[in-house]
Amino acid sequence: MKMGASVNFKDELARRTARAEEILKQYLPPEEGFAAQAARAMNYSLQAGGKRLRPVMMEEAWRMYGGTGREIEPFMAGMEMIHTHSLIHDDLPALDNDDTRRGKPTSHVVFGEAMAILAGDMLLNHAYETMLKAFCMTEHPDRAARALCVMAEKTGIRGMLGGQSVDVENDGTPLDRDLLNYIYENKTSALIEASLMTGALLAGAEQAAVEVMEACGRRIGLAFQIVDDILDVTGETAALGKPVHSDEKNHKTTYVTLYGLDRSRKKAEELTEEAIGMLEQSGTDCAFMKELFRALSARTR
Amino acid sequence: MKMGASVNFKDELARRTARAEEILKQYLPPEEGFAAQAARAMNYSLQAGGKRLRPVMMEEAWRMYGGTGREIEPFMAGMEMIHTHSLIHDDLPALDNDDTRRGKPTSHVVFGEAMAILAGDMLLNHAYETMLKAFCMTEHPDRAARALCVMAEKTGIRGMLGGQSVDVENDGTPLDRDLLNYIYENKTSALIEASLMTGALLAGAEQAAVEVMEACGRRIGLAFQIVDDILDVTGETAALGKPVHSDEKNHKTTYVTLYGLDRSRKKAEELTEEAIGMLEQSGTDCAFMKELFRALSARTR
Repeated sequence: MKMGASVNFKDELARRTARAEEILKQYLPPEEGFAAQAARAMNYSLQAGGKRLRPVMMEEAWRMYGGTGREIEPFMAGMEMIHTHSLIHDDLPALDNDDTRRGKPTSHVVFGEAMAILAGDMLLNHAYETMLKAFCMTEHPDRAARALCVMAEKTGIRGMLGGQSVDVENDGTPLDRDLLNYIYENKTSALIEASLMTGALLAGAEQAAVEVMEACGRRIGLAFQIVDDILDVTGETAALGKPVHSDEKNHKTTYVTLYGLDRSRKKAEELTEEAIGMLEQSGTDCAFMKELFRALSARTR
Repeated sequence: MKMGASVNFKDELARRTARAEEILKQYLPPEEGFAAQAARAMNYSLQAGGKRLRPVMMEEAWRMYGGTGREIEPFMAGMEMIHTHSLIHDDLPALDNDDTRRGKPTSHVVFGEAMAILAGDMLLNHAYETMLKAFCMTEHPDRAARALCVMAEKTGIRGMLGGQSVDVENDGTPLDRDLLNYIYENKTSALIEASLMTGALLAGAEQAAVEVMEACGRRIGLAFQIVDDILDVTGETAALGKPVHSDEKNHKTTYVTLYGLDRSRKKAEELTEEAIGMLEQSGTDCAFMKELFRALSARTR
């Protein structure tokens, strides 16, 4: 039955990804009026074909903890906007200077550097404008307020953007293990933690359950980034949609340079199994989330 | 008594500006841990000596409509963070490429371009993180939610950032009157509208009163920008803390190039008197706000 389950999982994941796409579409800025080009720049990156991993995780955490109603939707869309904001700014000439992402030209290549900077800003702001709509859709404004606080903390200097800024600051210098873990846990884990936490929070989960989601997210985010490091060495450009061996070329410290391929693989698997163990203790129907965690750890692109 | 009143106004404005500074200080990110440098970059620009005009206006609108309690404070700080975010990104090489602001080197000159981009991002996000703290300080979470919605709308593609992106898109090309007004009403007026509106909203003002504040803010923001255009022609670099004649050098369309100095001055005065007329109809104690509006119109830097 294992294989049958996996086939079902792939179908179910495709269904949920399509649903996340649909929800995101409802909150895209309209491409009209004087600022039509700005909206086109935002939508170009939002619709450049991401995995929609974070909103899918958010919705599943919400389902696991018994969420009903529609207030999860603006949060799912907002999460993807925050993630996309970070990709546009990451790719800028002053940061990673990447011309392609997911096989497509990056925002500053298509719209120019000034508009790419502003499109990133507008997406971050639009995420809040979107998530705030939950207040008009919920009978639990206190939960929406708490979820917004989590989103803001995990996005900002104590989360993704903090990790990103420490990464930038140490660009080109060798990193020790503490610093690399700090960067990964913030740059990558923080938004995954926020996805799982806000899903649970909006569903009305207890604080202890929200903390379990945070602990899961930290591990899955770190495993995700370690697999990224591995694929940069072992993957193929065509499959990944981005150049491989870029870490080596840029003399970047990664899990692979610090620990080697085998220990990195083992670490990613361990972290994934730890997170799965936590799910199994959570008393929820967590079959889909477990498969999702395992699929992320075993992914080849 | 006119002169006596003006002397009192200046003292009162200084007192309120100092209070806005104090409040902002309470919400600065701590310069500690791995992300200490990121916090330093945020705080450098936040403390580079602005006029704190927007939080002062916000607090006065709040007072005019009978606000009590402290939930206005995170909104005052958040507004200044959003404004400062926009200044850092405006000054970047890809946008206005300004090396100094208020007589000090700009963020990218001090911290490098990558960190300046991220510091701007972090300030925008920190604004929301800060304003969300109002939910823990208020007996009226509905008002805080509505005020957040106004802040987000006036900051985003339908507000400041929209105006900014249309400005960037048309850089170097002559603008017609409609387009110039659109840019000014969004790039400059939107945050002034938001300041007045959120002050009133948080105090519990009726929707009609909030709309009066919006209409005042639109006029005062436009007048503010027209006076900026005038000072770029008639002002002195030492007094302004930024180079004069920059619009002419950059072949920018401004109110002065479209209408000439005299008609621009007259327009700024008319807009200011219209806003004052609205204040006088509002049934509030608006003496300080009226003096503030007049002082902005008559300013020489």
